[in-house]
Amino acid sequence: MTNFEHTRRQFVLPDGQLYFAGNSLGPAPKAAAKRVQQTIEAEWGSMVVKAWNTAGWMDQPDKLGNRLAPIVGATPDTITTGDTLSIKVFQALSSAVSMRPERRVILSDSGNFPTDLYMAGGLVNLLQSDYELRVVEPEGIMHALSENVAVVMLTQADYRTGRLHSMKDITQRAHEVGALTVWDLAHTAGAIATNLDTNKVDFAVGCTYKFLNAGPGSPAFIYVAPHLIDTASSVLSGWLGHARPFAFEPEYQAAAGIRHFRVGTPSVLAMASLDAALDVWDEVNINEVHSRSIELSELFIVEMAKSCPSLTLASPTDPYQRGSQVSFNCDYGYPLMQALIAAGVVGDFRAPDIIRFGITPLFLNEDDILKAVGIMQNIVDSASWDKPEFHARKAVT
Amino acid sequence: MTNFEHTRRQFVLPDGQLYFAGNSLGPAPKAAAKRVQQTIEAEWGSMVVKAWNTAGWMDQPDKLGNRLAPIVGATPDTITTGDTLSIKVFQALSSAVSMRPERRVILSDSGNFPTDLYMAGGLVNLLQSDYELRVVEPEGIMHALSENVAVVMLTQADYRTGRLHSMKDITQRAHEVGALTVWDLAHTAGAIATNLDTNKVDFAVGCTYKFLNAGPGSPAFIYVAPHLIDTASSVLSGWLGHARPFAFEPEYQAAAGIRHFRVGTPSVLAMASLDAALDVWDEVNINEVHSRSIELSELFIVEMAKSCPSLTLASPTDPYQRGSQVSFNCDYGYPLMQALIAAGVVGDFRAPDIIRFGITPLFLNEDDILKAVGIMQNIVDSASWDKPEFHARKAVT
Repeated sequence: MTNFEHTRRQFVLPDGQLYFAGNSLGPAPKAAAKRVQQTIEAEWGSMVVKAWNTAGWMDQPDKLGNRLAPIVGATPDTITTGDTLSIKVFQALSSAVSMRPERRVILSDSGNFPTDLYMAGGLVNLLQSDYELRVVEPEGIMHALSENVAVVMLTQADYRTGRLHSMKDITQRAHEVGALTVWDLAHTAGAIATNLDTNKVDFAVGCTYKFLNAGPGSPAFIYVAPHLIDTASSVLSGWLGHARPFAFEPEYQAAAGIRHFRVGTPSVLAMASLDAALDVWDEVNINEVHSRSIELSELFIVEMAKSCPSLTLASPTDPYQRGSQVSFNCDYGYPLMQALIAAGVVGDFRAPDIIRFGITPLFLNEDDILKAVGIMQNIVDSASWDKPEFHARKAVT
Repeated sequence: MTNFEHTRRQFVLPDGQLYFAGNSLGPAPKAAAKRVQQTIEAEWGSMVVKAWNTAGWMDQPDKLGNRLAPIVGATPDTITTGDTLSIKVFQALSSAVSMRPERRVILSDSGNFPTDLYMAGGLVNLLQSDYELRVVEPEGIMHALSENVAVVMLTQADYRTGRLHSMKDITQRAHEVGALTVWDLAHTAGAIATNLDTNKVDFAVGCTYKFLNAGPGSPAFIYVAPHLIDTASSVLSGWLGHARPFAFEPEYQAAAGIRHFRVGTPSVLAMASLDAALDVWDEVNINEVHSRSIELSELFIVEMAKSCPSLTLASPTDPYQRGSQVSFNCDYGYPLMQALIAAGVVGDFRAPDIIRFGITPLFLNEDDILKAVGIMQNIVDSASWDKPEFHARKAVT
């Protein structure tokens, strides 16, 4: 059995809080402050511009990609880091679309994280002609995969309920109709076994500030399948993706391999924090974390059913159809979550009526689950939550 | 007279180096390490996800924009920060192009920084139809500004020689033919008075890691002219540019004003470092810095002419046609710069034969200039630099 008490000790856990918002922003790894400080003082401060080579900053986006690779089930040299997830969505999508020039449909679902849909919409506006962003209900994706679909872009886990798409089945179906896939792993990377290679995913993107704990606005990542890496081209052809960035040639020539998907100069401080956050993965692997997430989630669901039976489980009951979060529908979800946070149980609320709890084995354990459920039971039982004034506060600000 | 000895003391200057590469990567402000540490420990560590509101992270991109505004001559609420310069080039350019839908030419020059041309090329490839990136010689821009030009995109200072375009004249001519302007301030922001508002620039972009000293890969910025802010639209329509990002609405609705040009979640650590780097501007203004830059540059040029007459000035002699750098053409520039760096004079080399020296008044003074010239004279005089082996090393790696 993996010792998660050891990984737990590697995090700064906020005083007096049971932190169930690791699916939104992971807590600070203790190593992060030191690593970033070292980067500022021993690298930027002492070497200044020479550090691009001497301290290895230039290769860092791809080195970090290689550290991420086993966590998402990718072979080495298929991932690079940088930019934000929104930009990486745009990059993957524009690349995929340009590989299916005769097709005009970008398919997605209403369960996708909004920024993915916004970025796709922006791309469609830019492309003009007869491109279309077609958004269907999550359960309608398989049916909507037809031969005019250039690319299907989905977030693996619904950010509200944690409901998982079958990455394997949808990717297989997409390939049958000749479409490419862009999977957003924002809510799954570092939480469940995504197995990008074996699922034959074409493009994947993700952020590192949720289950990967790399800090607010930490670098995003992009994965390109090995068989596509040398044919896919990046519309966002920035100088860091050039074969010889320091030759300053007027014509763009793509670097070989995944380096081509680098764009501009990434934040070196943010990369240092990501590097520190990945240290914990030297001791655990994603399968262990996934198993443990299921164990803790099942415990949470069982205990909640006993202690707070008035809350309705919004997440799938089958743990293999659920990401690493547990959500409930609750008419008074907004004031309830405010009360929970005030009592030290930090989850979050998503309109119209969902309260979410991220289950993060790297730093949560059974005690946390039981304590949180106990606090929740007291709060739920303490007030007449069906009073109208609580319902009036549902709107998110 | 502004006391630049006081600003100098605010920087970590690398031991034993005379640092003339501030036009490539500025040195670390002493405040940066502390500010970033505080952000990690007191905000991320203690507040975790609540810090997005409690610590003001959510508004930080625009607050930093407002701190940058006076440095580049912009009114408040016309600048936001985030992403990399390459992305901001793409964003400004795609926005400008979509505002001139009947025109098909993006005009630029061969003196532009390569990544700007690469990003423009990527955009043209994506747009297909008959869009064209037309690259002319720098002195041909005024002539090439015709009524089929949608947007002219230029870097104000040539990164090799420091030669400045006339932002005022070109912008005026562009407007006469109905074109929009995108100015890249990478090599001028924080160095010279760019006066964006009075020059009637439409879009400007820039980085903050050169003359603004915010650290490697620090956030870029974008400026949109006040009269365009409410009509321009961002193709990169990420959730942070949404009117209500936390409402998670399926449809994109642009935020009012410059917030609309935010894209994804920016690195909060990188923003903290930028914030610290801008403190020095509470004490000096850009006109003082610009004057002082000219004073130091003129001294450097005069002393070099006396001490190293074999090096040919590559930068304009008129200080108002020159950015904050002094460059020389030199056949043995590559090995000479290697020798200079080894002797503690840190400039850099750009192919085929240019050695560059960034003139950065915030932390350089007359003593540094005189010492550097003295060291250079010794090195130039110490070897038979016209030997073939030195010429063979010109190629950049």
